[in-house]
Amino acid sequence: MIGILGGGQLGRMLALAGYPLGLSFRFLDPSPEACAGQVGPVVVGDFLDEGALLRFAEGLFLVTYEFENVPVEAARRLAARLPVYPSPQALEVAQDRLREKAFFRGLGVPTPPFHPVDGLEDLEEGLKRVGLPALLKTRRGGYDGKGQALVRKKEEALEALKALGGKGLLLEGFVPFHREVSLLAVRGRTGEVAFYPLVENRHREGILRLSLAPAPGAREPLQKKAEAYALRAMQALDYVGVLALEFFQVGEELLFNEMAPRVHNSGHWTIEGAETSQFQNHLRAVLGLPLGSTAPRGHSAMVNLIGFRPDFAEALKVEGAHLHWYGKAVRPGRKVGHITLRRDSQGELQEALQRLLAALALSV
Amino acid sequence: MIGILGGGQLGRMLALAGYPLGLSFRFLDPSPEACAGQVGPVVVGDFLDEGALLRFAEGLFLVTYEFENVPVEAARRLAARLPVYPSPQALEVAQDRLREKAFFRGLGVPTPPFHPVDGLEDLEEGLKRVGLPALLKTRRGGYDGKGQALVRKKEEALEALKALGGKGLLLEGFVPFHREVSLLAVRGRTGEVAFYPLVENRHREGILRLSLAPAPGAREPLQKKAEAYALRAMQALDYVGVLALEFFQVGEELLFNEMAPRVHNSGHWTIEGAETSQFQNHLRAVLGLPLGSTAPRGHSAMVNLIGFRPDFAEALKVEGAHLHWYGKAVRPGRKVGHITLRRDSQGELQEALQRLLAALALSV
Repeated sequence: MIGILGGGQLGRMLALAGYPLGLSFRFLDPSPEACAGQVGPVVVGDFLDEGALLRFAEGLFLVTYEFENVPVEAARRLAARLPVYPSPQALEVAQDRLREKAFFRGLGVPTPPFHPVDGLEDLEEGLKRVGLPALLKTRRGGYDGKGQALVRKKEEALEALKALGGKGLLLEGFVPFHREVSLLAVRGRTGEVAFYPLVENRHREGILRLSLAPAPGAREPLQKKAEAYALRAMQALDYVGVLALEFFQVGEELLFNEMAPRVHNSGHWTIEGAETSQFQNHLRAVLGLPLGSTAPRGHSAMVNLIGFRPDFAEALKVEGAHLHWYGKAVRPGRKVGHITLRRDSQGELQEALQRLLAALALSV
Repeated sequence: MIGILGGGQLGRMLALAGYPLGLSFRFLDPSPEACAGQVGPVVVGDFLDEGALLRFAEGLFLVTYEFENVPVEAARRLAARLPVYPSPQALEVAQDRLREKAFFRGLGVPTPPFHPVDGLEDLEEGLKRVGLPALLKTRRGGYDGKGQALVRKKEEALEALKALGGKGLLLEGFVPFHREVSLLAVRGRTGEVAFYPLVENRHREGILRLSLAPAPGAREPLQKKAEAYALRAMQALDYVGVLALEFFQVGEELLFNEMAPRVHNSGHWTIEGAETSQFQNHLRAVLGLPLGSTAPRGHSAMVNLIGFRPDFAEALKVEGAHLHWYGKAVRPGRKVGHITLRRDSQGELQEALQRLLAALALSV
């Protein structure tokens, strides 16, 4: 049995990808409503509750996570007893936007300019170095656009400093990027690596709305650049599992934005759109099994379902549409499902995507 | 919640295909070890035990089956309370090889010659009409080659008559066929129909060993013929769900062999090898959702794992190999998993299949 820290949709999809390998799963999640509980047993408890950790760990042969804000301490305690992949170190780097950026810069990977902010003085220094507009972000804990502010003027920066708590922050230069792309990479226990094609991601209000895979127009040198960056990071961390890297594309350059040490929303298209899904490849990696082919099958678009339940029949009428409903209660701004649209050509995909968005009454 | 009669691997794969639609499942199976129990709750009980049926039925919105030897009486009792798809009538036809063959003959579908046998006189009459060699089969209950005997001489026929119980039998002419093919068809509650491409099946000792999909060299007229036969049967039965038809191919003719009113082993390749799997399409059909595309993606081979557990790593080394391990105890002759191999071209597939069979130490 494999233990998964976190019981959200990523855990749920990991389990669904793992059952065909004959695996079984147990989740640890603070919420009794964790949606992975519909497909496997959940230990409900805080990640740092020793009793919950013990009940969770009993009889497992390895642990992984589907949520990167698991306390590193919980991962370390588990790692003292059984294999934990990716290592708690990777989790630690990913949880701190400053460490993460410094780590990638240290590897020679370009990033937007950034400066740590623990008070007014740092902010002023940062504004000098980074310029305006800029983003003031908490170093820890934000996700889906939470815990950050776009600042265009010095006064806005001062307000944001107060609103975000005055310290433990990071000021980042705002890059006028062409688009956002992500790379899903995977490294096995044997050191074997594989990379999915770059994906184009469109966000609104800080939440991923749409991914296009492979990223239209992305050329081989851009792909190779992203792969080289991911490889450096995975080797430096002795990383095992799927690693997601988000970049800003500026011309033919990539600036590192953030990493997620887990399967990632921008890789959901791989369930139908690639030979092997990110979920199955994450499991193959942590089990030391050969990785599966990451080759795309045609062209895919992944549309997140955020805060609403579509008419399933209307959505599934569109040829090549595959629904993934997570079994969560619908709440505003909450990711409750996604639809992957797979077609053989880019032209067919674009046409089908327009029909799908119309059926969902969405614009992205 | 959907109820599934039977908790074997077909039920397990139905559930795994249904979770992404936000569905949940409950199984009814006489065995506490039913492998679907690893992915959803099982009511353990006999199909005709009224208490078990009640516990199983509680709160379900519909019932389907993964096993065609469920007593028709159980399906009827459930159908008095809630929707059951396919209808108990389809189950009834499929459970009796004589009724089944007569039903298809009545629809104008060619079959091998056959004659009912309830004693010595029938047998002698049958041998006259059907000729030798022939197959003597029980009308009910056989599967995977059990409950039948190949008879080449009259004395063998007399022995087989005794061995098979002397009545409730069927004598069938042995057709020197080119190959065995199957058609997976699906019909929704709205009457919408879809057909997968014909599949070539290779059996040994009465058990399916290998499927090739689409069936190599099968031409459009053969496909259309099979679809027309399936359509007649589905319309006559007001069928809802996936229906599998097995045929003998003789030149460019198809002779009906048997039907299975459920998802079918020869359709397992559709999980990776078709746009929409047979499992998901069965669920879409019974829910009244639009059917998904049945278009193949490249070329697939499905190899059954019978009575042994392969080295997973060796098998997964082969590019395009997808393992499905059912979580069952390994016993001689028991289907415990399958591997689907998917490649873009027939040439690549044949080459990869040779490597896979070598890795599994199998010949098929």
